[in-house]
Amino acid sequence: MKQPEASPGNHRPAPTRHGGGKQPAARRPSPETGHRLLRRLLHRLGDPPLGIELEGGAAAANPDPVARIRIRDRGTLFRLALNGAIEFGDAYSDGRLEVDGDLDGMLEEIYRRAPPPSEAPVGGARWLARSQRGRSNSLRGSRDNIHRHYDIGNGFYSLWLGPTMAYTCAYYPRPDVSLDEAQRAKMDHVARKLRLAPGDEVIEAGCGWGSLAIHMARHYGARVRAFNISSEQVAWARDKAAEAGLARQVEFIEDDYRNIQGSCDKFVSIGMLEHVGLDRYEDLGGVISRCLRPDGLGLVHSIGRNRPAPMHPWIEKRIFPGAYPPSLWEMGRIFQPYDFSVLDVENLRLHYARTLDHWRAAFERSVERVAEMFDKRFVRMWRLYLAGSATAFRVGQLQLFQVLFAPGRSNAVPWTRADLYHG
Amino acid sequence: MKQPEASPGNHRPAPTRHGGGKQPAARRPSPETGHRLLRRLLHRLGDPPLGIELEGGAAAANPDPVARIRIRDRGTLFRLALNGAIEFGDAYSDGRLEVDGDLDGMLEEIYRRAPPPSEAPVGGARWLARSQRGRSNSLRGSRDNIHRHYDIGNGFYSLWLGPTMAYTCAYYPRPDVSLDEAQRAKMDHVARKLRLAPGDEVIEAGCGWGSLAIHMARHYGARVRAFNISSEQVAWARDKAAEAGLARQVEFIEDDYRNIQGSCDKFVSIGMLEHVGLDRYEDLGGVISRCLRPDGLGLVHSIGRNRPAPMHPWIEKRIFPGAYPPSLWEMGRIFQPYDFSVLDVENLRLHYARTLDHWRAAFERSVERVAEMFDKRFVRMWRLYLAGSATAFRVGQLQLFQVLFAPGRSNAVPWTRADLYHG
Repeated sequence: MKQPEASPGNHRPAPTRHGGGKQPAARRPSPETGHRLLRRLLHRLGDPPLGIELEGGAAAANPDPVARIRIRDRGTLFRLALNGAIEFGDAYSDGRLEVDGDLDGMLEEIYRRAPPPSEAPVGGARWLARSQRGRSNSLRGSRDNIHRHYDIGNGFYSLWLGPTMAYTCAYYPRPDVSLDEAQRAKMDHVARKLRLAPGDEVIEAGCGWGSLAIHMARHYGARVRAFNISSEQVAWARDKAAEAGLARQVEFIEDDYRNIQGSCDKFVSIGMLEHVGLDRYEDLGGVISRCLRPDGLGLVHSIGRNRPAPMHPWIEKRIFPGAYPPSLWEMGRIFQPYDFSVLDVENLRLHYARTLDHWRAAFERSVERVAEMFDKRFVRMWRLYLAGSATAFRVGQLQLFQVLFAPGRSNAVPWTRADLYHG
Repeated sequence: MKQPEASPGNHRPAPTRHGGGKQPAARRPSPETGHRLLRRLLHRLGDPPLGIELEGGAAAANPDPVARIRIRDRGTLFRLALNGAIEFGDAYSDGRLEVDGDLDGMLEEIYRRAPPPSEAPVGGARWLARSQRGRSNSLRGSRDNIHRHYDIGNGFYSLWLGPTMAYTCAYYPRPDVSLDEAQRAKMDHVARKLRLAPGDEVIEAGCGWGSLAIHMARHYGARVRAFNISSEQVAWARDKAAEAGLARQVEFIEDDYRNIQGSCDKFVSIGMLEHVGLDRYEDLGGVISRCLRPDGLGLVHSIGRNRPAPMHPWIEKRIFPGAYPPSLWEMGRIFQPYDFSVLDVENLRLHYARTLDHWRAAFERSVERVAEMFDKRFVRMWRLYLAGSATAFRVGQLQLFQVLFAPGRSNAVPWTRADLYHG
């Protein structure tokens, strides 16, 4: 979820002597001070068409508001002023902040006004953020990070990912196809880009619930070894392969990409790079270089950016610990040291916005089940994460890159891309 | 032309007392010393299947040679040992070195054994090379550099570029189409990637002899302003536009890309980036950012590399002063500072090898005319440049990238790429 970040320590309003209202124990700003603070918050967001109010207190609004942010208590208001990037998500999750009206419209109005992610504060700020939280992507750190997001329950994910259980950007040949159709089209698009042929040996790094590995085996006759460190996902994937009678053709291995051994004709990784960490890209490139045969092809599919920027701190803290979407140019750290030749890059940003819209709609149809499985706070947190992610792709704060590559000396490369679009 | 570089100052053989042979005034190595030196030269090239001999003196050969390098005099042999990267080209041009047998096969055997271009020596070495020669890409430096290559005679280029006069990589929908067909297909491929529509205002930076600008106006109804600092090319292009009755739709402007003013729906630059200079990429990005409308598209087509490496010194010295083919990742310096979103990258390396083969064949059919226009030395220099360039693309030392991009906030981007391949 992308949001303009508050500058910590700035605009700290002084507490006033005027109390009263719903929280009699707490001092609250006078209506005038409160109004100025709310105005300042709206201004900091680029003055979007929104209303904002402190319940039982001050209010401010720009013309034609698409939604109204209702803040339940004064502490939340102050924390928003101090560290809006994290507090907005936490307060929304807790219900200390409510959005009346169009949540998605509100996010879009805010994001469209946000300056493009900046290069300047990346190095220092990111380093600081990581070292404070200690979420490294070492072998053990990765396992913890992945466990926190992906092992919260296959039953939960199956409520809204649909039967493919693909938790990555789909490919919509036409904008109006269904999610399931688009996920299968994505698997075909990837398999075609890899020019997958019967008997091809494939290594997949970060295979999710295994749908691509099984698809490549079933429809393209590939033999796949698929790696993943999420134990829940691996268990699910093994069951599915066994059900499909493909257990001999697809092997699911619960291990880290750094431990991949052996060689392959095709190397593929869909949606794992976000969890690798920039400082490990060269390790990943080394693994690919070690495994991929001289006439092989590889494909990396990842969320990315137009230029480097830190991960949104609320998403990093609450949703994806240790994650980082690189700029396309940072992805060069995987390929450049090993003389890999990039053959084809495709940006599917708007397809991810649509994928997220589909997930969100299915999620909303299942909120009662989700609330039973977890609680209301969890529902609100995931609603904001899904809505915010869709918005980030829709306004261009996030990209989705598919990068096809080959060893630098290989001439076994596709002559054109026309074959991707015929037959 | 790519060739493994000799390390200056290494392997300098001591002159011996044994003279004689065709150049009686010069001392020459004993047959044994000469043999060791020739062996060492072959070894330095990775021991390709070649023969090498000093005329009237020593000789060495590896098994099954595809060609024999015949060195005419001892001074040439010593200079080869000292600075092979420049001396090979100069000696071949002068006829002080002859290749008996398959020139292209020889180049390929050598290039395939060369280590991939290295990142390590780039910074210092390139800076040194530039400051020594003073070939900067300032406004004036660029004009001088471009004049030296492109203003040597439209009549010369028309002998082998064919009627399109396109001096950039063609696009072969099938490997067996003709050069002219492939050049027209390239223009259509670029126009389609840009989703060119009637009435679109196009700015072209570095328009060569104007064929793309005229093609976009004639076949797509675009209005084009095309910039170029080669006066000979601009004169030719204006004549062609007038002949086609398109002078009101296509304006050729003799000026530097840095002076481009006004705005456009589509920005295109084919084969200019190689002459821009890495330290000016951000200037180019700034020009595009200033000109391209918020819902526009841009395309940059350039020779590139898998990783940074200095330009081959002989090519830089004799053929393309001031030129530099960037790695894909270095091209980010154009796009990243301005939040441009890369939509599509295509690598057409093998298409450039084929284009160069076609140019070379036409060139060889015209060598007598070329020798009349210039001299035999010129013929040999250009033969080596064309053959070496084809080889560099064929073995993967050079790449050809087409990068399609849009302003980072634009959602007026193609939904898929299927439209490039239909109808």
